[in-house]
Formats: sequence, C-alpha cells, structure tokens
Amino acid sequence: MPTILLTVEYEGTAYCGWQRQAAAPTIQAALENAIAVISREAVTVTGAGRTDAGVHALAQTAHFVTGASLPPEAWRRALNALLPDDIAIINAEIVRDDFHARFSALSKAYRYTIVNRPPPSPLARRTAWHLPRPLHLAAMRRAASSVVGCRDFAAFRAADPTHAASDDTVCRLSRCVISRRGDVLTIDVEGNRFLKYMVRNIVGTLAEVGLGKRRPGEVRTILESRDRRNAGVTAPPHGLTLVAVTYPESDAPR
Amino acid sequence: MPTILLTVEYEGTAYCGWQRQAAAPTIQAALENAIAVISREAVTVTGAGRTDAGVHALAQTAHFVTGASLPPEAWRRALNALLPDDIAIINAEIVRDDFHARFSALSKAYRYTIVNRPPPSPLARRTAWHLPRPLHLAAMRRAASSVVGCRDFAAFRAADPTHAASDDTVCRLSRCVISRRGDVLTIDVEGNRFLKYMVRNIVGTLAEVGLGKRRPGEVRTILESRDRRNAGVTAPPHGLTLVAVTYPESDAPR
Repeated sequence: MPTILLTVEYEGTAYCGWQRQAAAPTIQAALENAIAVISREAVTVTGAGRTDAGVHALAQTAHFVTGASLPPEAWRRALNALLPDDIAIINAEIVRDDFHARFSALSKAYRYTIVNRPPPSPLARRTAWHLPRPLHLAAMRRAASSVVGCRDFAAFRAADPTHAASDDTVCRLSRCVISRRGDVLTIDVEGNRFLKYMVRNIVGTLAEVGLGKRRPGEVRTILESRDRRNAGVTAPPHGLTLVAVTYPESDAPR
Repeated sequence: MPTILLTVEYEGTAYCGWQRQAAAPTIQAALENAIAVISREAVTVTGAGRTDAGVHALAQTAHFVTGASLPPEAWRRALNALLPDDIAIINAEIVRDDFHARFSALSKAYRYTIVNRPPPSPLARRTAWHLPRPLHLAAMRRAASSVVGCRDFAAFRAADPTHAASDDTVCRLSRCVISRRGDVLTIDVEGNRFLKYMVRNIVGTLAEVGLGKRRPGEVRTILESRDRRNAGVTAPPHGLTLVAVTYPESDAPR
C-alpha cells in the first residue's frame, strides 16, 4: 500500500480549519472525501499542521495510505478535478512507508501579512490583517529577535484550561523576520514546531510593540513568565498562511 | 463647488465593471450611491478608465464635483464606512476645478497576472489567469517589444460592428514588460490611452506566442493588419488590475 504525500494550497476563508469535524467544512474532510471518491475506500489524511479556521496555506503537506494504484500525477489531476476551487493539490508523490507528514517534518514556515495604512485593502482583505495606525518597524524587529532560538513558548500558546503543566512548550524558532514593502508588512516565522495560536499570539504581541503599547524588551519578560495573560492579542487568522514544510532529503520521493 | 479626486482600490469579481448600468452592480454606482448618502445630492463620478466586468483596481482614479464642504480626509473615512468591503477609497484630495479624471490623465498602467503551472492556485484564483502549459518567456518578450511605441491598435480592440473606420485607434505604449517570479508571470503595460479590451487582447496574443501557437514576429503583422480577427484570444478579465493613473504635477492637490 503506497503512502502518498500531497502538497496542498488552500484559501481557508470558507473552512473551519484543517481538522475534520462532525458538522463543519474542513480542509481535511474535503481531501478525504475527494480521495474516497477515487479510491473507493475510507482514508485518513494526516496533515503536517492543523491550521486554524480561516488560516490559508500555500504549501500544506499531508500524507495518506491507499490501496489504489494510481500514479502520483494521476492523483493530483483527479483530486483537482474533484476539489472545490479554494483547495488545490500542487504536488503528489510517493514517499517511504514510514513517512509521516507531521512527525517527519523538520520545520514549518508561516507568513503573516499586515496591511498597514489608514484605508483597508479590498484586494488583500481575505489574506491580510488591516492595522490602520502606523507600525514602528525597528521596534518590532527588536522584539522579534527575542523569540528566535530555543525558547519556552508557554506564554504564547492558546489560553486553554485543559493544558497540562507538563506539556512540552519548548520550540526552536530559526527565523522571525519582518519586511515592509509599501503598505504591506510581512512577518516570516520558521520553526521546528508550533503550539496552538503561537504564531498569531507572537504577531499580536509584535503588533502591540509596533503600535507603541509595549516596549520591545517586554517580549523576553513575557516568555519568561510562561503566562498567556502577559502576551498580546491573538492576531486574526485570515492574515496567516502556512508557506512551507521541510522534510529530510532522505524522505524525498522514491 | 470643490472637485474631489478619489483613488479607489477594488476587487471587481462581484461587479459588472466600472460604468453605471440600469440593473447591475457597478463600481461607479456603488461610489455614487455612497457619496449621495453623505452629500444628499445626486452626483456623477467620472473614472479615469472604464474597467470591464471582473477587472480589479489597486488605484483607479475618479473625480466628482460636490456642494458638500467636507475635508478630503473626512470624505475618505465616511465613504469607506459606507462602501462594501470589496471597494475602498485609498486617497481623497481636492483638485483644480478644471481637473478631469480621464482627460487630465497622462498615462495609465495595468498589470496582468498569469499563474503558469499545471495545478491551479486557490489563493490567486480571483486575480490571475491560470495557464497550465509552460509559457516561453523569451518569445513573449520579443513579441511584447512590438507593441511598445506609438502604434495603431485597431487589431487589438474589442470586436464590435459599431466601430467607425474613422475612430482614432492610435495609442502610445511606453511599457510592456513581462516578469516571472516562480510560477507567477506578470505583464505590465503602460500607455497614454487604451481601447476597449486592448490589454486583454494583447495578453491573449502574447500567451499564444508563449504557448508556441504563434511566432513572436506575428504581433507586428497583426498590428499592421488593423483587423481584430488576426489577433489572439481575449484574456479573461479577472487577471487584469488597473494599478496606476498618472497626472501632470500641476494637477496635484491644491
């Protein structure tokens, strides 16, 4: 039974996130349903990351095991013919049997986009957060440098009373780079793993630094506190896009 | 009575183009209706160009004359509060009384976007033409060079039996530049005036050159023929965006 790795682009606007739910449209369900039409077997699709409701992906990855003996290119074409136009398979390939989209991943990269000008942007309204007041880029960059490295991100995960104190909340961020081009600001974050809402909580906190509501040095104090209540707002989901998932070379297509 | 110049961004997907129509949603009608709510007077908004149904704008310009004495910044804020989220006023300023959004314009710039890869792009599906077969960039660039300069574009205007042979079909294009970044190809066209469907007919013809259906040198022959039947397909509207309108310095805000 071959294992197929899909690379998936989607606009998350119309979906309640990645993960299958009983009565709400999700990306995982859309993929599983389309695959089942082709393979005529129940299938589970495992994604590299569970994107939240409204979050987009340029290159989410997901694997599934199938008894159907289609070449990968045929999977890609057949699935794209069945999927709605806000989800597309960018690539399909056969991978090693022990490949796992989430556990085999070395790193994931997210991009958060902010339109920073008084008027909103109709063309970017589904994919960028609109912040009308000017952001202080240098302060945000100083703050961003504090989250790079191996850190305990407990203060930046979703507020959730079911979290156990023993949960592993240490992540290694290799990159948190802020760029501005005209009125558009992008925050590129790359790391080995991410906690729930982590990128959006980092972005919301960086935005507060950019607006002068917090000093850049506070980010380090927030991290050390390990307390979600000390971090900033959760940035809205529609500005966030999963842009890449990286695997070891040895997991490359057979 | 001051003349106000608006700079307008819009996603054209939901509209039957710029120009007001009796029973269809248009950008002009949306603007005129929003202005009328504020000024309590019937008003005509004159755009720099009449974008087709489905065409977008990053910076369309339009002027109107009003008896209401609001500062420009108040116009911008009030209109954005009233307009739907697919239209926004980026800037509002008072201009000279003899200013005319169309007649005063020195040039307009359009960008056409093509996603050139086998799978479609969900995130670009409203703003880019999807061409799955590979385009030959060098051939397209050779062909594009033929449309730059002062030329008779009769062969590239909309097929329309009501056109008079005496119509002025000479336009001066200062730029037709094709760029590729990954799978995304952009065609930037700038000129002093444009005939109906002209950019889309140029792009459709360039795409046929890129696909090897036409030789680059044919574009010159098509121009010389002055016959629409010789040019290529009309590229779909949703890949086209009006990106800038340029005015003389003397028309700058008072």
